[in-house]
Amino acid sequence: MSGAFEALGRTLRLGVIGGGPGGMIGPMHRNAARLDGRFAIAAGVPSSDPARAAAAGAAIGLPEGRSYGTVSAMIEAERARADGIEAVAIMSPNDAHYPAATAAIEAGLDVICDKPMTNTLADARDLAARVRESGCLFCLTHAYAAYPMVRQARAMVTAGAIGAVRAVQMEYLHAGMATRVEDGPMTPKLRWKLDPARVGPSLVLGDIGTHAHHLACFVAGLPLARLAADLGALVPGRTIDDTAALLLRFAGGARGTLFASQAMAGSENNLNLRVWGESGLLEWAQTDPNYLHFAPLDRPMQRLARGDADLLPPARRLVRIPRGHPEGLLEAFANLYSDAAEAIAARITGAAPDVLALDFPTAEDGVRGVAFVEAAVRSGRDGGAWVACEVA
Amino acid sequence: MSGAFEALGRTLRLGVIGGGPGGMIGPMHRNAARLDGRFAIAAGVPSSDPARAAAAGAAIGLPEGRSYGTVSAMIEAERARADGIEAVAIMSPNDAHYPAATAAIEAGLDVICDKPMTNTLADARDLAARVRESGCLFCLTHAYAAYPMVRQARAMVTAGAIGAVRAVQMEYLHAGMATRVEDGPMTPKLRWKLDPARVGPSLVLGDIGTHAHHLACFVAGLPLARLAADLGALVPGRTIDDTAALLLRFAGGARGTLFASQAMAGSENNLNLRVWGESGLLEWAQTDPNYLHFAPLDRPMQRLARGDADLLPPARRLVRIPRGHPEGLLEAFANLYSDAAEAIAARITGAAPDVLALDFPTAEDGVRGVAFVEAAVRSGRDGGAWVACEVA
Amino acid sequence: MSGAFEALGRTLRLGVIGGGPGGMIGPMHRNAARLDGRFAIAAGVPSSDPARAAAAGAAIGLPEGRSYGTVSAMIEAERARADGIEAVAIMSPNDAHYPAATAAIEAGLDVICDKPMTNTLADARDLAARVRESGCLFCLTHAYAAYPMVRQARAMVTAGAIGAVRAVQMEYLHAGMATRVEDGPMTPKLRWKLDPARVGPSLVLGDIGTHAHHLACFVAGLPLARLAADLGALVPGRTIDDTAALLLRFAGGARGTLFASQAMAGSENNLNLRVWGESGLLEWAQTDPNYLHFAPLDRPMQRLARGDADLLPPARRLVRIPRGHPEGLLEAFANLYSDAAEAIAARITGAAPDVLALDFPTAEDGVRGVAFVEAAVRSGRDGGAWVACEVA
Amino acid sequence: MSGAFEALGRTLRLGVIGGGPGGMIGPMHRNAARLDGRFAIAAGVPSSDPARAAAAGAAIGLPEGRSYGTVSAMIEAERARADGIEAVAIMSPNDAHYPAATAAIEAGLDVICDKPMTNTLADARDLAARVRESGCLFCLTHAYAAYPMVRQARAMVTAGAIGAVRAVQMEYLHAGMATRVEDGPMTPKLRWKLDPARVGPSLVLGDIGTHAHHLACFVAGLPLARLAADLGALVPGRTIDDTAALLLRFAGGARGTLFASQAMAGSENNLNLRVWGESGLLEWAQTDPNYLHFAPLDRPMQRLARGDADLLPPARRLVRIPRGHPEGLLEAFANLYSDAAEAIAARITGAAPDVLALDFPTAEDGVRGVAFVEAAVRSGRDGGAWVACEVA
Repeated sequence: MSGAFEALGRTLRLGVIGGGPGGMIGPMHRNAARLDGRFAIAAGVPSSDPARAAAAGAAIGLPEGRSYGTVSAMIEAERARADGIEAVAIMSPNDAHYPAATAAIEAGLDVICDKPMTNTLADARDLAARVRESGCLFCLTHAYAAYPMVRQARAMVTAGAIGAVRAVQMEYLHAGMATRVEDGPMTPKLRWKLDPARVGPSLVLGDIGTHAHHLACFVAGLPLARLAADLGALVPGRTIDDTAALLLRFAGGARGTLFASQAMAGSENNLNLRVWGESGLLEWAQTDPNYLHFAPLDRPMQRLARGDADLLPPARRLVRIPRGHPEGLLEAFANLYSDAAEAIAARITGAAPDVLALDFPTAEDGVRGVAFVEAAVRSGRDGGAWVACEVA
Repeated sequence: MSGAFEALGRTLRLGVIGGGPGGMIGPMHRNAARLDGRFAIAAGVPSSDPARAAAAGAAIGLPEGRSYGTVSAMIEAERARADGIEAVAIMSPNDAHYPAATAAIEAGLDVICDKPMTNTLADARDLAARVRESGCLFCLTHAYAAYPMVRQARAMVTAGAIGAVRAVQMEYLHAGMATRVEDGPMTPKLRWKLDPARVGPSLVLGDIGTHAHHLACFVAGLPLARLAADLGALVPGRTIDDTAALLLRFAGGARGTLFASQAMAGSENNLNLRVWGESGLLEWAQTDPNYLHFAPLDRPMQRLARGDADLLPPARRLVRIPRGHPEGLLEAFANLYSDAAEAIAARITGAAPDVLALDFPTAEDGVRGVAFVEAAVRSGRDGGAWVACEVA
Repeated sequence: MSGAFEALGRTLRLGVIGGGPGGMIGPMHRNAARLDGRFAIAAGVPSSDPARAAAAGAAIGLPEGRSYGTVSAMIEAERARADGIEAVAIMSPNDAHYPAATAAIEAGLDVICDKPMTNTLADARDLAARVRESGCLFCLTHAYAAYPMVRQARAMVTAGAIGAVRAVQMEYLHAGMATRVEDGPMTPKLRWKLDPARVGPSLVLGDIGTHAHHLACFVAGLPLARLAADLGALVPGRTIDDTAALLLRFAGGARGTLFASQAMAGSENNLNLRVWGESGLLEWAQTDPNYLHFAPLDRPMQRLARGDADLLPPARRLVRIPRGHPEGLLEAFANLYSDAAEAIAARITGAAPDVLALDFPTAEDGVRGVAFVEAAVRSGRDGGAWVACEVA
Repeated sequence: MSGAFEALGRTLRLGVIGGGPGGMIGPMHRNAARLDGRFAIAAGVPSSDPARAAAAGAAIGLPEGRSYGTVSAMIEAERARADGIEAVAIMSPNDAHYPAATAAIEAGLDVICDKPMTNTLADARDLAARVRESGCLFCLTHAYAAYPMVRQARAMVTAGAIGAVRAVQMEYLHAGMATRVEDGPMTPKLRWKLDPARVGPSLVLGDIGTHAHHLACFVAGLPLARLAADLGALVPGRTIDDTAALLLRFAGGARGTLFASQAMAGSENNLNLRVWGESGLLEWAQTDPNYLHFAPLDRPMQRLARGDADLLPPARRLVRIPRGHPEGLLEAFANLYSDAAEAIAARITGAAPDVLALDFPTAEDGVRGVAFVEAAVRSGRDGGAWVACEVA
């Protein structure tokens, strides 16, 4: 991970939007940003309630005087400082992504943004156009795609290790909504997730389905062409969807399935990927992320490990500690941040970036994700008809 | 495993149809029949070529003089003997199931038959009607359902261990046809499998899909109500289907997916089952058949083992050796045969059978399997429309 | 598995000694003998109580009139028959092995015998000498060594896949005596196992330790040279040993450990083997017997499967069904019996045996096993001193 | 993780000793210290070569002007600053631990120190005495013991989940020295590890054996009483030991084995623990650290997960993200640092610390570790005699 960032020779100043005290996603983003020493958390909008900004900022360790009540307040105040923020990281509820990102880009700030990019395809296309026109960086935090062994899988597919891709099986199953959470205490996080106006057209697809969609396409190296979807709720009485089963057809004809649910009692957080090609299989699971299983046709299965001597360059560059010592989700998140830092540093310094650092999810990937959600919702409403995933 | 068979006090005489030298399925059936000492292989039709009967019969160890060239020849000759066969086991190609089974039933013989029951739903219904009218036993060898831990899974679902079933995920994936076997040497087995007139309307569904369908319904305790299917070939230029991806809806509304393929390079013979209920998950894989994973909501996952002290009666009765010592597919097959023997012995002796022995697949299950194949083929041809699985 | 047995062209007639109703080991031996159609169970001494012979013989399916009250009665009566037994299989308590085996050899019968060969090294040496002088076959049923993937491991070591062997780690841990079984109901099996006069100088080493010792040496291809042992009971108040921890030194200097216990609450029946060489590791576990893990230095771990296309000949010849379909302990046992049948057939016919069939445990291996037990007991009594394993 | 640190209300200032550019252990310590926002890296002695201090400090991100050439220089300069360091973290080669730690304690600084505490038992005892007299905190970074599921295992043993401990099996096996590294390029790290004067009396025991020893005693809740050791080199021609096999006896009589090697070709970094009690087994492996396997006698094995709702308090407090999302070694290290911060904050503020934070390894544990090394070396030299582990 070298190149432009080394040329820059200093850490980048980041403003965080969302991620207030008590949640999981805030510390994840902030620790990931800092892990490799490429970002300092310089400012933030730590609460959707401006009155709580100072307290929330103190609680999460923002520098004094740099906790703001609104995104626009942060942008304005930071612009006036010599040491003002250079980029923002957005980890607020889904409906806040679009306004925050557009405001940041308007101000010339680079953007790191949690998924889904937006709640509508129109917004996604508009945001992607603004990104293109501004020249700002936009990195969407599909962090699972930044695990070293996922990058290895993608690189192996690209290198032909399994031949032409024939089939993809993708699962993301957990139990977070397996009970009637609607009837329990409404945490702030739960409140917006259960509100269709805020979470978007599909809870399950926005929350976890887009991760699965991105990961499948990322590793297979193929965009999704068409899908047929069965959406609904497993929990009786639930008015939003918590489960999606999809049949997939990728560009070029490869087939696939995608099964995502937040109502699978007993499942942990099972994000599992299998990609079959004409000459073998690659298999990865987030619960065991330091290994990638590679089963060549008619040969023994191999278990590749993060840290193996002969990993391909896109994976090898991400290895921090020897094999056998586990890394987790934090390091995957940090890989995304460090890659984004390289791209930002290249823009600032004009130095050539490490090209291997440029494989993070972009605004175009974000558009594809939102297009996927909309196509699935349309198919589901249309009795499971095959629907094209049209991006533009 | 006691009851009527003990009352009978002797082994049953079995005639085998198919299963000639060189294959895998013949030794499997014959060893399974003999394992618990309930059947003796007394006669057989070991080859589809009558001229090879004697040699083939000698090669597989049939008693001298009791290798026949045709099913009817066997039935006629054995009927004339005091020690003639009492039941037949059919393990010939798919298209031979119906004529062999009807001939046996016509002769009053009990029937053990490999899947799929028949190649058409009309034949299946007709055969099931003949079985009902004759009072003969009909046992379909969905042997996977006779693994002790699969029986345990079914019993746990019945006992409410996971509450109401919400979702089922079923996979059967292997690599047997991942290459252009059509262009290689045509073994006899391959020849009939690649011939639509013999293998039935769908290779993949007849060969492995019906196993998956039966297992899903058996464990979930629910018939399949509707499906939407995506059928086709992963191998370029192949004119028969080798892959099926299905969305499922069970009676009562539970959802599911079924993914079956014979063209998954790198997959072994992966028959995997997951059933989620409102309060937990059951998970089983044929590659690790002596264990069943049970993940109750919000509690640690448990790994139940064949041989555990507290298995439910339908599983406990099938345990031959202590836990930690593995059993395999042979013992599962043998469980089916031993259960069939108990049912046959009950018919012969009039003694009450062990009711736990009566949970083997019947002619009605066979009809459901063929109806599943036909519905899936219809949905596939109709662009993936949702189609009802109508049995009658 | 061809050669002399095909030349013989018929099944061999076997007399069983021990293995009466109610146990696990009797059905295991009998089913294994019959599985590949090489032996018929023709006679037996099914109970240590002559008065129960007829009933016990009927219960386990011996032919009428061929259940005997004593070994000598069986030998005498069978010798008089044209269709008399040609070999015996001994599965009685440990102290009965020596007299039964010597009587059989005296009568010119081939012997298949459960472990340990004898209870004293003097008896073992004497029995081995008798075997040599008689020319009879003697096969000791260390069945774990007949799993295909164990044979593969041995063949890979021999072929240099891991270079010179450096270290071996062997475990055999179960929970059968984790509680005060002494205070519970005394089953016949428990009674002799708890009687030092019958079970031999060490319960744990005779019962499971010799299996572990044999497997370690078999796969490593090295005899054990020296050991230091820590023997004792984990269960308070127990007067016999249930646990042994040993440090090992093999011929040539390779190091090792062996940990065996029957008092490990929570362990299943965990027979685990690891062999490290200068360039890699082989790992096998009986709970997952269809796979062998091979980890070459600095390369991904490979999971070899029973049924893989490129297994070495000693393993490939043992594959009955395709990979992904599991086999278990029964098939391993059957491999031993079928190999023994090949050797016996070679002796009868004079035909050259399949040399790959001759890798079963012999009387010499039996002597090594008993020498191991005696050395370990001596070391344990001598405060863990290093003791040589002297065979002669 | 609250209490005194919250009362303190600010981050602690840490000086790092060792951990210069290019290594793995430096970033691990520094990131761990910062992860939960409890320490800031304020100064350091980043190189053993004073001339390289400034460059090395810049490379690892030390604040300008606070990279020192020697420990004493750092202590003196920092003492003069209002914002001087409050604690040191020592991650230099083994022989540098004692002088650095004593100097820090002399200056009243708290100490976090990598293992082994010292190279001689005399030094260890002296250092522990200084710690006691000074009242300074001393935390030894046996980080494996700070994985949540290891803390859960310890808490379960304490709570009686497996009854009285009967046996412990401990392994730490890797391949770092499986080849003749002596003949290759001598990295700085390799140079001191291969120098007995610097690495201490046993390479393998100092480097990884003390980790294994600590972990075994920590989880079993028992000090080691006696041992018998077999030490040596697996790699031909090696003059230092790379492998140790030990038989153990814990206080109270529980038995055990410990197998540690740095020359196991094919092993990853396999730190595995099993503890059996009278009523069950606990099993943990560092390669799968987010799970703990609990096998109660005669009941199904349970897989407890980091994030399960019903973990015991010592584990539950360490959970940062939901189960199914993996954490790794970094978070375990960070747990130690955060616990140390709580203890330091308690000393500074006088507030009562979170008692659950006080279970980190202390100077007394360090003495036990060095006593273990010395006892094992003595036993090895004495032909494997049983030797007592005397601490005082």
